[in-house]
Amino acid sequence: MTIDLPRRLVAEGLGTAFLVATVVGSGIMAETLAHDPAVALLANTLATGAMLVVLITILGPISGAHFNPAVSLIFALRGDLDARDAGLYVLVQIIGGIAGTWVAHLMFAHPLLEFALKERSGLAQWFSEAIASFGLVATILAGLRHHRRAVPWLVGLYITAAYWFTASTSFANPAVAIARSLTNSFSGIRPFDLPGFIMAELIGALAGLALMGWLLREPALTRNHEVETNP
Amino acid sequence: MTIDLPRRLVAEGLGTAFLVATVVGSGIMAETLAHDPAVALLANTLATGAMLVVLITILGPISGAHFNPAVSLIFALRGDLDARDAGLYVLVQIIGGIAGTWVAHLMFAHPLLEFALKERSGLAQWFSEAIASFGLVATILAGLRHHRRAVPWLVGLYITAAYWFTASTSFANPAVAIARSLTNSFSGIRPFDLPGFIMAELIGALAGLALMGWLLREPALTRNHEVETNP
Amino acid sequence: MTIDLPRRLVAEGLGTAFLVATVVGSGIMAETLAHDPAVALLANTLATGAMLVVLITILGPISGAHFNPAVSLIFALRGDLDARDAGLYVLVQIIGGIAGTWVAHLMFAHPLLEFALKERSGLAQWFSEAIASFGLVATILAGLRHHRRAVPWLVGLYITAAYWFTASTSFANPAVAIARSLTNSFSGIRPFDLPGFIMAELIGALAGLALMGWLLREPALTRNHEVETNP
Amino acid sequence: MTIDLPRRLVAEGLGTAFLVATVVGSGIMAETLAHDPAVALLANTLATGAMLVVLITILGPISGAHFNPAVSLIFALRGDLDARDAGLYVLVQIIGGIAGTWVAHLMFAHPLLEFALKERSGLAQWFSEAIASFGLVATILAGLRHHRRAVPWLVGLYITAAYWFTASTSFANPAVAIARSLTNSFSGIRPFDLPGFIMAELIGALAGLALMGWLLREPALTRNHEVETNP
Repeated sequence: MTIDLPRRLVAEGLGTAFLVATVVGSGIMAETLAHDPAVALLANTLATGAMLVVLITILGPISGAHFNPAVSLIFALRGDLDARDAGLYVLVQIIGGIAGTWVAHLMFAHPLLEFALKERSGLAQWFSEAIASFGLVATILAGLRHHRRAVPWLVGLYITAAYWFTASTSFANPAVAIARSLTNSFSGIRPFDLPGFIMAELIGALAGLALMGWLLREPALTRNHEVETNP
Repeated sequence: MTIDLPRRLVAEGLGTAFLVATVVGSGIMAETLAHDPAVALLANTLATGAMLVVLITILGPISGAHFNPAVSLIFALRGDLDARDAGLYVLVQIIGGIAGTWVAHLMFAHPLLEFALKERSGLAQWFSEAIASFGLVATILAGLRHHRRAVPWLVGLYITAAYWFTASTSFANPAVAIARSLTNSFSGIRPFDLPGFIMAELIGALAGLALMGWLLREPALTRNHEVETNP
Repeated sequence: MTIDLPRRLVAEGLGTAFLVATVVGSGIMAETLAHDPAVALLANTLATGAMLVVLITILGPISGAHFNPAVSLIFALRGDLDARDAGLYVLVQIIGGIAGTWVAHLMFAHPLLEFALKERSGLAQWFSEAIASFGLVATILAGLRHHRRAVPWLVGLYITAAYWFTASTSFANPAVAIARSLTNSFSGIRPFDLPGFIMAELIGALAGLALMGWLLREPALTRNHEVETNP
Repeated sequence: MTIDLPRRLVAEGLGTAFLVATVVGSGIMAETLAHDPAVALLANTLATGAMLVVLITILGPISGAHFNPAVSLIFALRGDLDARDAGLYVLVQIIGGIAGTWVAHLMFAHPLLEFALKERSGLAQWFSEAIASFGLVATILAGLRHHRRAVPWLVGLYITAAYWFTASTSFANPAVAIARSLTNSFSGIRPFDLPGFIMAELIGALAGLALMGWLLREPALTRNHEVETNP
């Protein structure tokens, strides 16, 4: 890691801000324009997926482009990020995310400070978030192992699918969840529902780390291969 | 093949589960939200295509990322997969697919066990499935021959198109068809209609193998070229 | 060119058939499902663009993947394809295209033989087709010059845009136009209107060849550069 | 830069013309067909994003594919383009853009000369344009630094997202804004509102240049790294 910490932190904060501004802003635009709620979610999905590819590509070489405390936690547990830096990453991700909500509100002439009223809670929602985060971490870890340059696309496409195949529209990101609790629009989540979401996201991420640690460890020879190699 | 069989089987099962969870889950989300049925199918298409690119990219290096008994059969017939492994692949694909339906039901708070009531039968549907599977196998075999790293994209894009250009929305996958018989939602198929679908899929896949075997065999010189080379 | 002519012709015919089956089939599916006509065209666009990327990628190494008499004409004029082969390419493209319409009709249980009643005529439509074909040829020639491996994507994306920015939805392909005159569905065109479309497409294609011939010729030094190099 | 100036200027003019014809033409097609305004904007977005990838890929090797006075200004300020050429680039971008509007009007049988009546003004709109241009310049500069070949995709995807996450649908381009003031259709902007848009775009672009200049400068060693390297 040859980039100095201040720039890495700015990159994490900037990226998370743009990501949240995209999620919240496109949600406002979509619910304003759309008659069909599925069209609104399609537009929200398209904007988010496209922006993820861009942000991870351009900021990845600087900070790793986590934009997500669950992802920074996973890299810290793997030993790829030291504990202090991981803590600072999470801090600027949360600050950046909140700034992103405010930028979206300024662009759409919403009140700067809002709290979401949209309820997102219950076992099905939490299970959705756990599955979403499990898949996200699996995608990132497997992508980094075999297809490093494709990771921005993989994450963008994964989230594109996850908006639709999970009942929670796949937040899969505690910093983004916190930022989305501060907008009373299409993409909001009640502040009260944050703990359940964040807990489910962390559990899913840890499960992804565990499974992929096994699935991606250096290839062990099968018994057949051993016989062939050591007759 | 240097990855041990247990991990290859887990990769096939996991991938098929995520694929089916995406098809079924995004179908439920889409029919819940959409007023326009074409928007529902668009969302279902987008999620499935995006997820296929991700799953084949990240799990391909482990198991080959078939997620489809018709594809495993083709590779077994080509001698790329031995018969025992092909049988185990098919088994875990079916188990993984069913698990995927259940995961989707849990995420959307549907009853775990359902049977589809949606009729999908008749000559036009079967012909559609045969064409869909023919094209899928042709895409995979030609892609592997000339553009190995592009195969995840080719399959994702092919299925994106095939959702729309076939009358059956292109299942093209016996394991996915079985799993979809266990959901009474947007993407379901009556269990009674499974044999027709699966038979059509296998016929189409075999036709694809036959044609591409000829089209992709090592280039033969044309008479003109022979004359030029051996005057 | 090391592939023998029979296989090149089969690849051209097969590719054009799949292209037309996608255009016609997805058009039928879309008009059947959609309430909003713009959603129908979006689905038609998505399927066509995705299939073009697949077909050009997988069949390009065999036949060059023209699937389009206007494109084969341009390559013949550039000396990349001899006149006899170009004539045979055009013949199998037309035959393949018609077969593609029939395959789509079989999949959707339409009568095999139909004639389109949809009028597509007039100066604005012809100008649209000329612009569409001009841009297609420019995209192909410039793509081949600098980004050969990206050409399938460039063509798929160009046609995706051209469905919407031209008033004719951009046929830009005489063989596809002929095949579409044989379906009385979303993507049809009256047989009576074919000559105007085909003439406009060829004029646009030739204009594209002329402009790109100049724009892409080997770089000439500017006066400034000459001064710098030969002081 | 080895391509002579006349061809570079033609490439800039041609590219801007196609870009504007796509924005305006797909806007007309979309508002004509769509019942749901969000579907119209989705179609407009899809066509524009796809065309940007194509145009930047095929014309980038000739002129750099700016198509945007704000981008040419940034490259001039960085010393990548001399002042005279930058002035000529801007001139042909404006001329090309206007020609693009007229081509779209001819294709859709609109009156050639129109003036937009759609109001786009106010602090929220200007802030949106500044954010949109800031992000565009950041994307281009960071993309060129680390992923030169991906830049066409990054710009296409960025604009795809920006259509939705900004309240102004992200013109982010003074030449395109001028051209869009000459169409009284979906994508129009009142001539009276141009100065505010253009000023906001230039401010955003300069802010992007400033931030990325710092973020992307050659890596400085952190104090920790210095200690490790020079103990």
